[in-house]
Amino acid sequence: MKPSIPKGTRDFSPVEMYRRNYIFDTIKKVFKKYGYQQIETPAMENLETLTGKYGDEGDKLLFKILNSGPVVDQINNSDANIKLNEISEKGLRYDLTVPFARYVVMHQNEINFPFKRYQIQPVWRADRPQKGRYREFYQCDVDVIGSDSLMNEVELIQIIDEVFTKLGMEVTIKINNRKLLSGICEVIGESDKFIDITVAIDKYDKIGFDGVKKELMEKGLTDASINKLEPLLKTSRLDSIIIESLSELLKNSTIGMKGIEEISTILAYLSSINFNFDKIVLDGTLARGLNYYTGAIIEVKANNVSMGSICGGGRYDDLTGIFGLPNVSGVGISFGADRIYDVMNELNLFPDFNNDSTQVLFYNYFTKDQSVYLGLINKVRAVGINAELYPEPADKGNSNKLQKKQFEYAKSKNIPFTIAIEEINNWKPAVKSAANKTTKILETESFVEDLILFIDSNI
Amino acid sequence: MKPSIPKGTRDFSPVEMYRRNYIFDTIKKVFKKYGYQQIETPAMENLETLTGKYGDEGDKLLFKILNSGPVVDQINNSDANIKLNEISEKGLRYDLTVPFARYVVMHQNEINFPFKRYQIQPVWRADRPQKGRYREFYQCDVDVIGSDSLMNEVELIQIIDEVFTKLGMEVTIKINNRKLLSGICEVIGESDKFIDITVAIDKYDKIGFDGVKKELMEKGLTDASINKLEPLLKTSRLDSIIIESLSELLKNSTIGMKGIEEISTILAYLSSINFNFDKIVLDGTLARGLNYYTGAIIEVKANNVSMGSICGGGRYDDLTGIFGLPNVSGVGISFGADRIYDVMNELNLFPDFNNDSTQVLFYNYFTKDQSVYLGLINKVRAVGINAELYPEPADKGNSNKLQKKQFEYAKSKNIPFTIAIEEINNWKPAVKSAANKTTKILETESFVEDLILFIDSNI
Repeated sequence: MKPSIPKGTRDFSPVEMYRRNYIFDTIKKVFKKYGYQQIETPAMENLETLTGKYGDEGDKLLFKILNSGPVVDQINNSDANIKLNEISEKGLRYDLTVPFARYVVMHQNEINFPFKRYQIQPVWRADRPQKGRYREFYQCDVDVIGSDSLMNEVELIQIIDEVFTKLGMEVTIKINNRKLLSGICEVIGESDKFIDITVAIDKYDKIGFDGVKKELMEKGLTDASINKLEPLLKTSRLDSIIIESLSELLKNSTIGMKGIEEISTILAYLSSINFNFDKIVLDGTLARGLNYYTGAIIEVKANNVSMGSICGGGRYDDLTGIFGLPNVSGVGISFGADRIYDVMNELNLFPDFNNDSTQVLFYNYFTKDQSVYLGLINKVRAVGINAELYPEPADKGNSNKLQKKQFEYAKSKNIPFTIAIEEINNWKPAVKSAANKTTKILETESFVEDLILFIDSNI
Repeated sequence: MKPSIPKGTRDFSPVEMYRRNYIFDTIKKVFKKYGYQQIETPAMENLETLTGKYGDEGDKLLFKILNSGPVVDQINNSDANIKLNEISEKGLRYDLTVPFARYVVMHQNEINFPFKRYQIQPVWRADRPQKGRYREFYQCDVDVIGSDSLMNEVELIQIIDEVFTKLGMEVTIKINNRKLLSGICEVIGESDKFIDITVAIDKYDKIGFDGVKKELMEKGLTDASINKLEPLLKTSRLDSIIIESLSELLKNSTIGMKGIEEISTILAYLSSINFNFDKIVLDGTLARGLNYYTGAIIEVKANNVSMGSICGGGRYDDLTGIFGLPNVSGVGISFGADRIYDVMNELNLFPDFNNDSTQVLFYNYFTKDQSVYLGLINKVRAVGINAELYPEPADKGNSNKLQKKQFEYAKSKNIPFTIAIEEINNWKPAVKSAANKTTKILETESFVEDLILFIDSNI
């Protein structure tokens, strides 16, 4: 049997884990800096929690789990007519937002609102795998729920900026506002087509204005209405000039003007802290598929590389309503760790791989008397230095070959210091730096002290 | 709709996450100290990777995933006879050992053996939930593969001791050796009944000697054979006296004497580093269900609390053979994070909950001019202090009630320092320590410096 793993899933080796942890740790540190606290939810949710929340397309992409026990026997043995709801009641987490809403409703009596939470866990989608799209991938979500203050939107934009600055990535933060989109639909007299319009213009990047037009005409919009949309689809630097021209366009729409006010407020606060506006654009085509957004919407693209959105989110005014807790406004964003990884990999942005485990390797040259090593290595670990003993002694059989294996082991693991106990040094331990090849004999009386000094001066 | 989560699964709140991370971080730090490197594998494995590896009982407890796409439609629409292998090809990870073996075989050309890896991920079992048994739980595995040196067993026992010492838990480390069990079967003339015997004596704790006897008689063992087993079932301190008496018993069994030699070697090395033998017992009834073990077997129980095994493992000589890479010996153990959590909770061993995110909360007393807060909080975060602004201003509506809400928020999140900007202090920011109620006005020119001084002297 030749082993394999399911399509769209991946193993992560130590080097990949080192890099992935670098991303997770950076993100986590920023989340904590802004006062968010961690929660986790189960990988499995009841299907009724998940279905109907991600649109028809999303429902199809849910991974469903077979009920265990008698049902499996039934499938194996009978020729009865089997219904999906009889054989599957659970599905794998599709995102972190819906489980979060479910969590908030279930735990509402323990939570002191506003609730600032972060959550970093894998999600699963039965999507066709392609570049930047996996069937198992990690989302890093940060949300504040129970506050309608726009200070939250400002904070999330700061968090985006800080995370990508720390990771050394150049990005463009695209923002828009669902109220602006509603306002536009209102002023062109097509309010009842709001969902059709947002779905169509969301594809503007891929299908262009002609494609959007074609799709909307099929939905019954008039030529005149559609042409009025065109100015909205331009992407612009977010500044006071664009705000003014939008105000002019939307002056007869209450909801549209509310959208303008929200964008202006966010803009003013960002300006007060000298936020670099070169990183932000107002993108009128940004609609985001999920229909629970009601205010600001945000999406981040990496500059200089071809990759879908690497972070996105927005404000939702009633996400918990579907689970029985209405009128709780929240806003949040989600970082796509796997795409961030792919971008950093492509642009060579990862720091050099440093082994974050072993700092000192003891070469193993004795068949007998290995307790000498155990005593020494315990002293090294006791002062907090990560250390290992090569478990197989080289002093048996082809000793040269076995020594070479140990050198190669140290090299492949990037271990910065090695200790050998050999006849050439009168069986005293000698430490060697991989970086500069310096060596030093460590005397028994001052073994650990000498080692620490050596490490500090050869790092 | 009243939301719920699947039976046997759990949400984790910020306080629980803080405690869980305390366990994971402690374990991870010890793993790294001994030179182990992290890998991760997908939550889903192909069913052919999983089935047949955990016995018949295990196969029944696998969570199977429904194929997506046409199959779902087929189930919904047709009355065709459906076979399990047509609707499910994937299952959820049942443990970390089999996926690790699969990983080693798939990545053998990238790995420089011996390979010391750790892996901390959830696993899923469709078991009946009860105390200490969940359907989703975390395993923390540490294995070395590609080395038959007993130094690895010694190291794993040191790791167990170090992890539980760091967590403040008193435990008993039970060890045994499969070769010893084989030897016993040999000397009582029942080698062909090895599996029946190990399965039966594994239940000794629950069913007693009479129960074991009954089960073995049903399997065809004679009264005389079974009575010869009795001395083995006694648990003893691991010392030279027990080794001697076992040697006497097994002197005519080559494999049995090999088991004795392995135990003696481990004992001698542990003795050379003054390991505390009060923590170890030789438990002849310890067999461990999984049939891939071939040498040392280890299991850890918490003292003073009723809970199943919290850590266990052993040596396997041919686990990768099933995936096409024979003759690679490995040894590993797995820590059960969820049971460790439950024990620590029951014995009150967790450190006080310290909020590991927000250190400073700015009370929000302005409806307008919130940019004052933004400027100050940015300065605080810039020096690495985690800080948040309460997003909803209290200066609107019922101001007293809204202020009280902010105090309660700070209290519920255990935030150690709060900053208020109020008329009483001429609108200068004043910091307050939650621990000792001290306050101090922070002057504009030295705002951050004064804050750092205050925090350092009131922590």
